[in-house]
Amino acid sequence: MSPLRVAFQGERGAYSEQAALALFGADIEPVPCQSFDLVFEQVESGECDHGAVPIENSLAGSIHRNLDLLLQHDLYIVAEHNLRVSHCLIAAPGVAESDITRVYSHPQALAQCEYSLRDLGKVQAIAALDTAGSVKLIQENGWRDAAGIASERAAELYGMEILRREFEDEKTNYTRFIGLSREAITAADDAKTSIAFAGKNVPGLLFKCLSAFALRDIDLTKIESRPIRGVPWEYIFYLDFDGSMSQQHCRRALDQLQEMATFVRVFGSYVRATAGWTHDA
Amino acid sequence: MSPLRVAFQGERGAYSEQAALALFGADIEPVPCQSFDLVFEQVESGECDHGAVPIENSLAGSIHRNLDLLLQHDLYIVAEHNLRVSHCLIAAPGVAESDITRVYSHPQALAQCEYSLRDLGKVQAIAALDTAGSVKLIQENGWRDAAGIASERAAELYGMEILRREFEDEKTNYTRFIGLSREAITAADDAKTSIAFAGKNVPGLLFKCLSAFALRDIDLTKIESRPIRGVPWEYIFYLDFDGSMSQQHCRRALDQLQEMATFVRVFGSYVRATAGWTHDA
Repeated sequence: MSPLRVAFQGERGAYSEQAALALFGADIEPVPCQSFDLVFEQVESGECDHGAVPIENSLAGSIHRNLDLLLQHDLYIVAEHNLRVSHCLIAAPGVAESDITRVYSHPQALAQCEYSLRDLGKVQAIAALDTAGSVKLIQENGWRDAAGIASERAAELYGMEILRREFEDEKTNYTRFIGLSREAITAADDAKTSIAFAGKNVPGLLFKCLSAFALRDIDLTKIESRPIRGVPWEYIFYLDFDGSMSQQHCRRALDQLQEMATFVRVFGSYVRATAGWTHDA
Repeated sequence: MSPLRVAFQGERGAYSEQAALALFGADIEPVPCQSFDLVFEQVESGECDHGAVPIENSLAGSIHRNLDLLLQHDLYIVAEHNLRVSHCLIAAPGVAESDITRVYSHPQALAQCEYSLRDLGKVQAIAALDTAGSVKLIQENGWRDAAGIASERAAELYGMEILRREFEDEKTNYTRFIGLSREAITAADDAKTSIAFAGKNVPGLLFKCLSAFALRDIDLTKIESRPIRGVPWEYIFYLDFDGSMSQQHCRRALDQLQEMATFVRVFGSYVRATAGWTHDA
């Protein structure tokens, strides 16, 4: 049997690839894609069995592009994983820290390592298109005065060495990834359900909508509002709650919500990742 | 009288500088800072009179770093501005589109112009630390085969030419900026108030908290929940609502909220920007 093909955005060795392995197992065939759009397209068309995309970062917030793509495509969330984003300083084998004059990475990763970079003394920070790509670049050019900031996996994949681990300034950097499929699963135990809903922006709308959950003691784990593009003064809400659509009280909550809202979409009921943001991958 | 000094993050010509001018007037002295942290520090220490920082982008979501910094510093929100982020393709005077082989910008800007870049034919996209910085880089090196993606203002500042305007794929790209001060103003008319609050994560907490607003017909314009770092299962909520702390019904709503929540902070009541995300700067 051929392995499951799982689409992710980025180069081999990207944090998204690491998440794909955590979500769908070590035996998958990770399929790199240039953009998030392509990840969704590959899964929808059947080219890939699953997709793995980041949905929220503990420092940078929601990745709205992927929330948009969830609404645009007919895919379901079947799993979640909280990945601890831990950056390594990576160089060619034998290169010492004192040899480094330039450090390459994605600007967000460079920014997350600002204080650690100052520690290195006088080095130039240079932007690259992605974290793993910066390691690939250094390896391909045979540079011995440059380092990249990327995952441990990127170092392994490109045969490079890790000079420092946990190079990020802020150790509580987590990204929540979701696993996508063409078919919904409906997890029964330890489940979380993700939905989106919208309604006319009248005072009290959200309060009425949330009563559907509060009156049934359903715990919300995430809520976010966002203006709908091109439709001023209308909002869409993204909500995660504890429980599954296989449970009657959750189905009844959704029935009530449908009375209040003008639009409701269920992305899926899937097994909750352990311990949320405190979980170390 | 010396002009008001307004701190912003980035190089001269950054979108944040444009927002600083829109927030505090054309006569200010914009003060570039390397990081958001520095913007807050410059205002708190009195080095600068005000700060201008992005808080939310219509495509990329909330800028959590700045929400964190709001909680860490004793500053107030005194104004808001919705900036339409419109990218220009910028090159040295006399350079034609057909001369371009490389395009520099921040990876997020490059990603936002993906389709437009394909239109240019075979060009290499190269990451830079920021949008305005890419134009500065090309100007300083005198490159005639390269273009940058940045604001119109960046082109003016560095004496460069705009080859294409509205180069972004998605035209509804807005960033909401806030103006910071050491002292609160309390706008009375057309006001919006920003607060943060936290409480024990028990089912129904948010519902109870929102009742303070719903029962008084106070319209919410934004809500977002976020795990508190290092405190698992506790959440902080960021809320914007229509109205001012100068109005009794808003003060009463806050009184009620304080009964339900374990922590409440008011960032300020300020004049609402016109027409939200549909407003073109």
